[in-house]
Amino acid sequence: MDSMIYLDNAATTKTAPEVVDAMIPYFGELYGNPSSIYEIAGKSKEAVDKGRSQIADVLGVSPEEIYFTAGGSESDNWAIIAAFESCKSRGNHIITTKIEHHAVLHTCEYLERERGAKVTYLDVDEKGMVDPKELERAITPETILISVMYANNEIGTIEPIQDIGKIAKEHEILFHTDAVQAFCQVSIDVAACNIDMLSSSGHKINGPKGIGFLYIRRGVKIHSLIHGGAQERKRRAGTENVPAIVGYGVAASRAWNSMESRTKKEVQLRDYMIDRILREIPYCRLNGDRVRRLPNNVNISFQFVEGESLLIMLDMEGIAASSGSACTSGSLDPSHVLLAIGLTHETAHGSLRMTLGEDTTKEDIDITVEKIKAIVKRLRSMSPLYEDFMKKQH
Amino acid sequence: MDSMIYLDNAATTKTAPEVVDAMIPYFGELYGNPSSIYEIAGKSKEAVDKGRSQIADVLGVSPEEIYFTAGGSESDNWAIIAAFESCKSRGNHIITTKIEHHAVLHTCEYLERERGAKVTYLDVDEKGMVDPKELERAITPETILISVMYANNEIGTIEPIQDIGKIAKEHEILFHTDAVQAFCQVSIDVAACNIDMLSSSGHKINGPKGIGFLYIRRGVKIHSLIHGGAQERKRRAGTENVPAIVGYGVAASRAWNSMESRTKKEVQLRDYMIDRILREIPYCRLNGDRVRRLPNNVNISFQFVEGESLLIMLDMEGIAASSGSACTSGSLDPSHVLLAIGLTHETAHGSLRMTLGEDTTKEDIDITVEKIKAIVKRLRSMSPLYEDFMKKQH
Ligand SMILES: Cc1ncc(COP(=O)(O)O)c(C=O)c1O
Ligand SMILES: Cc1ncc(COP(=O)(O)O)c(C=O)c1O
Repeated sequence: MDSMIYLDNAATTKTAPEVVDAMIPYFGELYGNPSSIYEIAGKSKEAVDKGRSQIADVLGVSPEEIYFTAGGSESDNWAIIAAFESCKSRGNHIITTKIEHHAVLHTCEYLERERGAKVTYLDVDEKGMVDPKELERAITPETILISVMYANNEIGTIEPIQDIGKIAKEHEILFHTDAVQAFCQVSIDVAACNIDMLSSSGHKINGPKGIGFLYIRRGVKIHSLIHGGAQERKRRAGTENVPAIVGYGVAASRAWNSMESRTKKEVQLRDYMIDRILREIPYCRLNGDRVRRLPNNVNISFQFVEGESLLIMLDMEGIAASSGSACTSGSLDPSHVLLAIGLTHETAHGSLRMTLGEDTTKEDIDITVEKIKAIVKRLRSMSPLYEDFMKKQH
Repeated sequence: MDSMIYLDNAATTKTAPEVVDAMIPYFGELYGNPSSIYEIAGKSKEAVDKGRSQIADVLGVSPEEIYFTAGGSESDNWAIIAAFESCKSRGNHIITTKIEHHAVLHTCEYLERERGAKVTYLDVDEKGMVDPKELERAITPETILISVMYANNEIGTIEPIQDIGKIAKEHEILFHTDAVQAFCQVSIDVAACNIDMLSSSGHKINGPKGIGFLYIRRGVKIHSLIHGGAQERKRRAGTENVPAIVGYGVAASRAWNSMESRTKKEVQLRDYMIDRILREIPYCRLNGDRVRRLPNNVNISFQFVEGESLLIMLDMEGIAASSGSACTSGSLDPSHVLLAIGLTHETAHGSLRMTLGEDTTKEDIDITVEKIKAIVKRLRSMSPLYEDFMKKQH
């Protein structure tokens, strides 16, 4: 796979070699259960503590505020379901947005369908930005939770989290943010943003799959989602995934240490790529905010082109990208995020997401842009819609 | 840790070298997200399919009936909570037992506390055996779920699952079994036992931590526990933990292939150990059924001895064992399982669980028995209770 150009780092990333190396001893050698009391178990416990500290350090919080889960989806489910359960004597209203990840949206829909929740799904503007004023207007005396993502996984837009956190605090409403795409990509100040709960996932930052965390601010009293043993200070049952926690800690440390230089490089490459595509390919548009945008996200709609065909042809050239979020591909519905920013079904279908990673080079970008140019041209030449359109132009 | 004698395989096992080897390529090389469509993602998808088939083969079911989770606890929570939600128009009564793992018990308690469930916790006899007749008498028109573990994690007793499944079927009630300790230790016939749902966890069978599965029989209509992306045929959201699934598949295959010879050896060593202890150490008793017992489980109560002290002194001799289930150690409450089979608090506190593994040798057992003899003698010599008792004897 070495000749591949991988531009789908928002779907998942390569586990870094030093992360894998750090994990290996915890499989076949230091395999003890951290909840036991003998020597080998003590080493597992130390390793879990270390991973927790490494992550807490990145977030600038206390290790006791980090709870390990199996990934971003579980963290989102936990925050939302448990907040709903814990606050139900106060109200049943949740405010979120139309562009959340399905792990948030489908959890809210579940609470509406099965548990009597009322949910407001806020609109966003054409850049994918939530309006804090609109959010404030949506608050009712019944509102118990606000869940707004830190940055969108499809179009990269970074939300006004600090403003939203301020409103949540003023109204004494719990504030959760899905930071699965933002953690270690932008610097997050949970205190300044008044964040009560924050979700993250290991495999998005060159860490392992199957591990995530939920930050729960000290004092926030939510119950468990997974009931059972006393792990994670009785809040999340299940034998600790020691190797993955070790890997996650190392991944967070290294992603944090490299963040400044890595994202600086990514922003340059990202902007270079966006500029070249917009300049060199007619009838396309950038999705998401140009500036308040994840360093590694490029999302472009090409008119008269089917995103899936574009993807398949790029794959044949050894380039891996995405047309929507990976979790929902396999479905023919256009992306809910692209519809929410006002794209037509057709335009949404012609969209391509390319997400850069720590290994992406300028050469990768140049090759990719050239390939896209050629493929878009070819696909358009076969499109009756494009033919009609061109006829009308002349 | 090579000189250690590890007798806590019910808490967790060493990840087998071939399991680790099989996982490694899926970290740094074949790291694609199985939900994506390009080549490297296709390889991840194939790997997930293969892991699923390997597990389905062991259980003799269809791969579409296997749903990956993050472990035994999640599987138990999912089965019970989702069954409750899916059947709530029919009733709210659940039957389980007093000796289930906390992942079952605390989930039932949650449903009672928060969701209006009624739960019957069946007693067991002095061997830890559930009485199917008593279970049948507990059924009401409101009963929607029976959850009885296949084999107990502390005392090793194997429950009359086939009889229970028959009753569940006759009354058209969903039947879930926690087989975390039984899978690949005893042969399980889900069809003959009328099992609708079955939980398992990777790290108990020399596979990785952080992965489990829930078997859901085709036709059983339960919803999700973790909502979000369309993974696991829309029933369990979250990016698939590809390396762990690969490892779990290999672990299941190898544990299944070796089951006959491994458990034959374990049964011999187990019985040899039990015989020696009961014969050579006065005032102790075996907990659990002597015959209908997991091949690798030895659980003994030593009168006039504190289990924790015994554990610590064994640890100093390089022997790893357990006094209750690992998940609850750190707590001073005596094991709920030992209390349920009628032990006093005192006797329960003096209990030691030793669980054999594939690497356990007769020499390990001999060394361990000698050490236990010496430690028990020493601890008793310091016990005022023992002194009193001995005085009364003479
Ligand atoms: C019978 C039983 N059920 C469930 C579990 C929970 O499994 P896990 O810790 O992998 O979530 C265990 C493990 O301790 C167990 O022994
Ligand atoms: C914004 C966002 N939230 C949640 C998730 C879910 O994370 P995971 O698949 O690791 O459970 C993702 C990943 O696709 C994501 O991008």
